[in-house]
Amino acid sequence: MEKVLVFGHLNPDTDSIASAISFAYLQQQLGVNAEAVALGTPNEETEYALNTFGFEPLRVIETAANEVKEVMLVDHNEAQQTVKDIKDVRVSYVVDHHRIAFECAEPLFYRAEPVGCTNTIIYKLYQEHNVEIPANIAGMMLSAIISDTLLFKSPTCTPFDVEVAKKLAEIAGVDAETYGLEMLKAGTNLATKTEKELLNADAKSFDMNGVTVRIDQVNTVDFADVLSRKDALEAEMLKENEEEGYDLFVLLITNILDSDSIVIALGEGVDKVEAAFETTLEENQSLLKGVVSRKKQVVPPLTEAFNG
Amino acid sequence: MEKVLVFGHLNPDTDSIASAISFAYLQQQLGVNAEAVALGTPNEETEYALNTFGFEPLRVIETAANEVKEVMLVDHNEAQQTVKDIKDVRVSYVVDHHRIAFECAEPLFYRAEPVGCTNTIIYKLYQEHNVEIPANIAGMMLSAIISDTLLFKSPTCTPFDVEVAKKLAEIAGVDAETYGLEMLKAGTNLATKTEKELLNADAKSFDMNGVTVRIDQVNTVDFADVLSRKDALEAEMLKENEEEGYDLFVLLITNILDSDSIVIALGEGVDKVEAAFETTLEENQSLLKGVVSRKKQVVPPLTEAFNG
Repeated sequence: MEKVLVFGHLNPDTDSIASAISFAYLQQQLGVNAEAVALGTPNEETEYALNTFGFEPLRVIETAANEVKEVMLVDHNEAQQTVKDIKDVRVSYVVDHHRIAFECAEPLFYRAEPVGCTNTIIYKLYQEHNVEIPANIAGMMLSAIISDTLLFKSPTCTPFDVEVAKKLAEIAGVDAETYGLEMLKAGTNLATKTEKELLNADAKSFDMNGVTVRIDQVNTVDFADVLSRKDALEAEMLKENEEEGYDLFVLLITNILDSDSIVIALGEGVDKVEAAFETTLEENQSLLKGVVSRKKQVVPPLTEAFNG
Repeated sequence: MEKVLVFGHLNPDTDSIASAISFAYLQQQLGVNAEAVALGTPNEETEYALNTFGFEPLRVIETAANEVKEVMLVDHNEAQQTVKDIKDVRVSYVVDHHRIAFECAEPLFYRAEPVGCTNTIIYKLYQEHNVEIPANIAGMMLSAIISDTLLFKSPTCTPFDVEVAKKLAEIAGVDAETYGLEMLKAGTNLATKTEKELLNADAKSFDMNGVTVRIDQVNTVDFADVLSRKDALEAEMLKENEEEGYDLFVLLITNILDSDSIVIALGEGVDKVEAAFETTLEENQSLLKGVVSRKKQVVPPLTEAFNG
């Protein structure tokens, strides 16, 4: 039988890697010759999960058409987030929890739900097909939910994500809270990274009323770990603004234990940051209580402040 | 609770009307204030189904944003097939079995499967939510599957469509074959239609290597019913070619009892029609054994003949 590749998005996070593993296994049980692959190497958080549950990192591909005719996309659907030769293969299945910007010539399976994590949907698919989830795969699926919801604290987390995570923790034989915290901490090992790496690992650019705003988010278990490097980080932020043409650089340092963030902003329009969060920046920084989601809690008020 | 509108595509067929009815009812059972509406009046086949199972025609809307903020799309997803103000409302759910060309800003429920009919997918959704299907709604869902698969004979029909139709027939308390034939026949009442109406009811235009090909399909239970009007139909086909700028007009007359079609072709490139179906046209016509699907059995070989 012809092989089918299953993969998550470029610059993969734990959900993208775990989705490829769990969905490929499900497809194998349904008789499909599916192989889980990745569009990049795992980050430290994902590595921790893979090690815990006994998986090797997935084979990394850059193109798909050279080896298969058919692919299945998990945790993404947009053309710019996938293999560059996506037009040369047939997409037969999509499982995702993001916004949709997708086109295809042939009818296919598309399963999207507005939940916190792709693996929450994949759990439902296992149920619907009556396929048992092996303990090690349940562990990866749990890791994905913990990662995407910041241990159930993100506003993107739904009650159904929590319910599924509980069941997966049972199958995997781990305590979700204890394991989850260790896994998230593994992703906050900032000591080995340069300031430039820290500021680019998870950064995205946004146009806000003609102003180019760069927003990076760094997870930590102790603000002091990051703030001890504040001078060097600020120097690098100013350098990035100048070299890359950003008008404003916003660094969000998120404490995953307390579910608070500290924002550091440098450049044109820091007053908009103050307006967005109804705060005053002191030495370029301010504490944002209860803020953990860039998508839901930072981009919308900042956009509004720039448009106001 | 805010109202949500549920509707199928413009120029609605039986699946679009039945999907709106069956999916709105399911959503109501799940606590959503959903109303089934339509983007056009029912055709004669759909009218027959509505009458049989005791439904009034759905309220017809032209725009949505004037009455709701949220809509659910069934049996379609593409912008040009839906309400003209689709950009002004939020799409929260799509259930469909067609190719996808869709964009939205927010995550949503999207359920697509490559089966013969949208109501086959909706049947699964009833199962997943443990909602009982009322007999009259089962009758509409069955009608949709029969319509889309031409009583299970179209190459688009899957074994799962057949399986679901059997269960729906049981709930509706009708014999699928007997009822189905009567319903399809109701849609083949050609006597009341002018030649122009017959040639436009279901016609689509295709560009094939620079040649504009117009393909219309007419269902019948007796070829003679249509062929008795052949002279008038041919005169109208030539008139359409001249007035609308079609290079080639292809009329497919499909016998829904025998699952065969007669093709009549007039204009530039009738030799391509002969090449596509490995046949010779006599007096502009030829019998195509086993051909019932324009999408799967006519457009692809004709496209190939024009490109060859």
